[in-house]
Amino acid sequence: MHIFPKERTLRVAVVKNILDANTRIAQENRKLFDTHGLTVINLMSSPGAGKTTLLEQMGARFEGELKIGVIEGDIQTSLDAERVAAAGLEAVQIETDGACHLDANMVQNALSGLNLDTLDLVVVENVGNLVCPAEFKIGEDCKVMMLSVTEGDDKPYKYPLMFKESNVLLISKVDLLPYLHCDIEKIKEAARSINPDLIIFEISAYSGQGLDDWHSWIQEQTAKK
Amino acid sequence: MHIFPKERTLRVAVVKNILDANTRIAQENRKLFDTHGLTVINLMSSPGAGKTTLLEQMGARFEGELKIGVIEGDIQTSLDAERVAAAGLEAVQIETDGACHLDANMVQNALSGLNLDTLDLVVVENVGNLVCPAEFKIGEDCKVMMLSVTEGDDKPYKYPLMFKESNVLLISKVDLLPYLHCDIEKIKEAARSINPDLIIFEISAYSGQGLDDWHSWIQEQTAKK
Repeated sequence: MHIFPKERTLRVAVVKNILDANTRIAQENRKLFDTHGLTVINLMSSPGAGKTTLLEQMGARFEGELKIGVIEGDIQTSLDAERVAAAGLEAVQIETDGACHLDANMVQNALSGLNLDTLDLVVVENVGNLVCPAEFKIGEDCKVMMLSVTEGDDKPYKYPLMFKESNVLLISKVDLLPYLHCDIEKIKEAARSINPDLIIFEISAYSGQGLDDWHSWIQEQTAKK
Repeated sequence: MHIFPKERTLRVAVVKNILDANTRIAQENRKLFDTHGLTVINLMSSPGAGKTTLLEQMGARFEGELKIGVIEGDIQTSLDAERVAAAGLEAVQIETDGACHLDANMVQNALSGLNLDTLDLVVVENVGNLVCPAEFKIGEDCKVMMLSVTEGDDKPYKYPLMFKESNVLLISKVDLLPYLHCDIEKIKEAARSINPDLIIFEISAYSGQGLDDWHSWIQEQTAKK
C-alpha cells in the first residue's frame, strides 16, 4: 500500500476509513456468497506467474463437475476474461483503470455479471502484484497466492505480507526448475517461517505436474458448502 | 496506485497533495544530482525479473571504470544491498516497511548513505512491482524497466503505464526462451505501440547475452555528464 511520509497523520486517517469501508463491503459480499452456497477464492501473484493458465486447466478438469465463475482483475484489457471464457468458464472482467489491486467494492460491482445461483466456485483473479492485493479482503473463503520459481527463492522474505495473509501457496512453473538457479526447498522453508499454516502445492500448469493434488483440494473446499 | 471508490473526492485531493509534494522533492534531488555530475537511473520491474543480478554484472563490467552507487528498495530485508555490495558497488538499502514503491522523499533520505562526490552513476532499484513505482518521479535522468520473458508476451497491454513512462525496456532472461511459450517479437510490438520511443535491449544476466549493448548505452549516458 502507498505510504505518504509527508502527510503521515492524514494518511492514517484516510487509510483507516478506506480499510473500514472495505471490510464492511467484504462482509456484505461474504453474506451473499453464503446465501448462494458459493466457495470463493482470491487468487494473487506477481504478473505472469501463471494464474490464467491454471484457470484454463481448471476449466478443462472440472467440466461437467463444478460450475466455475471467474472475476478477472486487470489494469487494462479483457484478455484474461476472454481466455478463461474460451476455456468454458463464466467470466467477468474488471478493468481497474490504474488501480494496483481489487477491493471489495469492485468485486461487489462485478458480481452482477455472474449467475451466482448456478455457480459452485468463484475465483477472483487479482491484479498481478505481489504487494497491494494482500491488504484488501473481498469476502473470500481463502486467499491463494502463486509464486513462480522464475521469481527466485528469496521472495517470501522480501514480500512477507502476501505469504502471511495467504492460506495456500502454489509454487508454479516447476517444469522450468532444471533451467533456473532456484532452490524450491528454500522457497518452502522461507514461506513456512512466515506462515507455518500455509498449504503448499508445487505445480506446472503446462506439464500438469501437481495439478491432481490442487484439484483435489478444490473439490474438498467446494464440498464443504 | 490505490484508488478509493467510496471516497473519490477525498482521494483526488489527497493524491494531488502527495504527487505535488513528490514532484517538489524529486526536483530537489535532481538539483543535487546535477551538482555532483551524477547520472541516475530508476530501475523498475515485477519481483524476480533480474534487476539485482544485472547490477552484479554491471559491478564486474565497470570495475575501475565507473563508480556506481545503488539505492535498493525492498519492503523488507537488506538481501539485495548485501548482494550488490559483494559485487563491489556502493550500496544503501531502503526498507519501505510495506510501501509498494519508492518515492522522492525516501530516495532523498537514503542519499546520505552514498558518497555522491565520488560516484558517476546511481541506480535506484525500486520495489518489485510493475504498477505503482511508475507513478513516482524520484529525480532520475531516466526510467529503465525490466520485463522477464517468463512473465509472458501480453504484459505491455495489461500494465501500460510502466511501458509508457519508461525510457528503456530491458527484456530479460532471454536464455529461457527455448523453454517458454513466449514470443519476444510480440513483447516488442506491444511495448512500441504504447511507447514508440522506447529503447529496447534483449538481455540475459546469466548468459551475458545482450549485455555489451546495455553497457555501451550506460557509458553513453554517463559520458553526457
